[in-house]
Amino acid sequence: MAITGDQRLLKRINRMALVRLVRSQPGLSRAELSIETGLTKSTVSLLVQELIDDGWLREDTVLVTGAIGRRPTPLRLDGRRLAMIGAELGVDHLCVTSMSLDGEVLECVRAGFSRQAAPEKVLQQLAELIVTQVANLTSARRELLGVGVGVPGAVLEASGVMAVAPNLGWRNVPVREALGMALEALGAPGIALFVQNDADVAALGEVEFASVPIGDPLLYLSIGVGVGSGVVVGGRLLLGGRGFAGEVGHIQLQANGPRCSCGRSGCAEAFIGLQAMANGLGCSIEELEARTRAGDPATLAGLATAGERLGVLLHNLWATLDPALIVLGGESCRLGSALMGPARQTFAALAQTANLDIPPITESRFGELAIPAGGAALVLHKLLLPI
Amino acid sequence: MAITGDQRLLKRINRMALVRLVRSQPGLSRAELSIETGLTKSTVSLLVQELIDDGWLREDTVLVTGAIGRRPTPLRLDGRRLAMIGAELGVDHLCVTSMSLDGEVLECVRAGFSRQAAPEKVLQQLAELIVTQVANLTSARRELLGVGVGVPGAVLEASGVMAVAPNLGWRNVPVREALGMALEALGAPGIALFVQNDADVAALGEVEFASVPIGDPLLYLSIGVGVGSGVVVGGRLLLGGRGFAGEVGHIQLQANGPRCSCGRSGCAEAFIGLQAMANGLGCSIEELEARTRAGDPATLAGLATAGERLGVLLHNLWATLDPALIVLGGESCRLGSALMGPARQTFAALAQTANLDIPPITESRFGELAIPAGGAALVLHKLLLPI
Repeated sequence: MAITGDQRLLKRINRMALVRLVRSQPGLSRAELSIETGLTKSTVSLLVQELIDDGWLREDTVLVTGAIGRRPTPLRLDGRRLAMIGAELGVDHLCVTSMSLDGEVLECVRAGFSRQAAPEKVLQQLAELIVTQVANLTSARRELLGVGVGVPGAVLEASGVMAVAPNLGWRNVPVREALGMALEALGAPGIALFVQNDADVAALGEVEFASVPIGDPLLYLSIGVGVGSGVVVGGRLLLGGRGFAGEVGHIQLQANGPRCSCGRSGCAEAFIGLQAMANGLGCSIEELEARTRAGDPATLAGLATAGERLGVLLHNLWATLDPALIVLGGESCRLGSALMGPARQTFAALAQTANLDIPPITESRFGELAIPAGGAALVLHKLLLPI
Repeated sequence: MAITGDQRLLKRINRMALVRLVRSQPGLSRAELSIETGLTKSTVSLLVQELIDDGWLREDTVLVTGAIGRRPTPLRLDGRRLAMIGAELGVDHLCVTSMSLDGEVLECVRAGFSRQAAPEKVLQQLAELIVTQVANLTSARRELLGVGVGVPGAVLEASGVMAVAPNLGWRNVPVREALGMALEALGAPGIALFVQNDADVAALGEVEFASVPIGDPLLYLSIGVGVGSGVVVGGRLLLGGRGFAGEVGHIQLQANGPRCSCGRSGCAEAFIGLQAMANGLGCSIEELEARTRAGDPATLAGLATAGERLGVLLHNLWATLDPALIVLGGESCRLGSALMGPARQTFAALAQTANLDIPPITESRFGELAIPAGGAALVLHKLLLPI
């Protein structure tokens, strides 16, 4: 009997549901998957065999427990055959990683670019870095699922156009189209390409590579030169009407406060952005980091004041979104507890006054690679998304 | 052939999808529904007939256009047979409405209660109001789909327990369970009961009774004695990890600001809550409204200052959520442009500085009935929700 379009779609949905289940509960057997999904045992067996053949799942060694009877075979994600490439388009640098299905970084390359470079030049350079990793994955006999790019601005999901990237000074750049054409010109056509805001992909990195189910809603707050957030709720990104959701660096924390790069005053970014903090202390970002490491009292006092502002920002986002988990990322993580300590304290004290507990706060599991790893997670997210 | 559980579920999903389609595009024909859904014409005909028999849809008169051939019959929601009851549990009053499927208010009753009354007493009084309307619907030969209640606090969705209602002074009240038992004791057992936060249900009221598709994400901001918000994104409520999302009255707008009823300082509610504004002007809420109507200069100046704070709150929520539509509701709408004018101006000016446009801002279409109408919408939402 011929398979209809509906059946093909249903099959794809069921396959991806099985992958997500095994990912969130490693070690599940076929019989347990049948119970969890309501699919018959024979359907599960058929789909699991396909997923094993295609490189998504693998059978784990059966533990000999001494109990009688045939042991069910535990299933896990197969990290050995499939791969995603994730890329960060930073304000002055590119970073490209190859990642396995289970979140292992297979290769990572970083390169700088001039802030004066035209968007096409920068995307050409990015395409070259990607093509090298595509070749390396092929040599290693890995199959590429796609490429995901995190960019420092709001992205229109349908078109892959970056509308505004204030810290890059770019407007209306068709990142996906331009990158696709550059890849094709370099002999790598037909690659599935996804583009999304950097904090959004970093949030996905925490969710899609988690080995156990992770807090939902998840709020990822990225603090570098720019400040932005990504929220995953019900397994999906909160993008807003035009892809501008999460522009929390421009929440006003103080009327008539310091001038922000966006033109407004008193924005969060004008208090806790890396450049703003360095400016406030009359030094460069590198000097800010060095002085913090050295324990310079004036620097620590400045960071403590900024940390209190960060605490208020965390509190306000928490009141709005009630996240079950907050993840902090971005270059400011290098400043460690000098910034984060006062932030946590301020947040917790505000909540305590209202007799409420704050959710857990962690740092990004991929650290400085949060955005490129997030780009790889975006590929996985798009493939595993229930329609 | 026997219908399996899966088929029954699929049928329910398809039925509800047809209702949503006809609601958002009134006048669709069976043939157009077939194209929109991918279901066969015979399946659509069968389901549409059932939906007509059950009171969800009705056939509209065919317009004679002069063109040749049989005209397809336009379908619409049937407002004549089914009904929902929606209720508001306010801080000192109850309001219960019966609503038709297409958003018509069939009956509306309001009653006060003492702030000293115990929760069980208040819920008993609410049950009595509901039972009267159930009887009236029965007399009018309408079928009740369920009862939805909007409450002034955070609700745990699964249990229907209201965790905290600061302006009522209630904590951990099992609203759904208590109300269900009271209804049963009054001879109205087995009614489908839903409970949710008041701003959340009011947001649903805008979405579920819209005759054309409405902005998504939709942000509903309720400003009364308390200040809270409800967000509908992708057709679903944003509830947060513990049902606390939208507690935006407690966003800190100013460090070391005025004391809020929650114990914190500088909360939005301490600037723009009705009681806070009245306190600030040294009068009661009733006097505040009277003086505003009379155009008292000191009152208008006070409201303008509060309006600027409201503008900052709207701006900050917009930066976080990027709503496609903002709806304002709550008792402060009675203050009209004295409060809302400066709010819009401040919001628009902030956005303008960053070269961005603000989304449309409207007032709740149900006005003072936003919460009870929202309770009725909650019933519809739960029944029409794609699983």
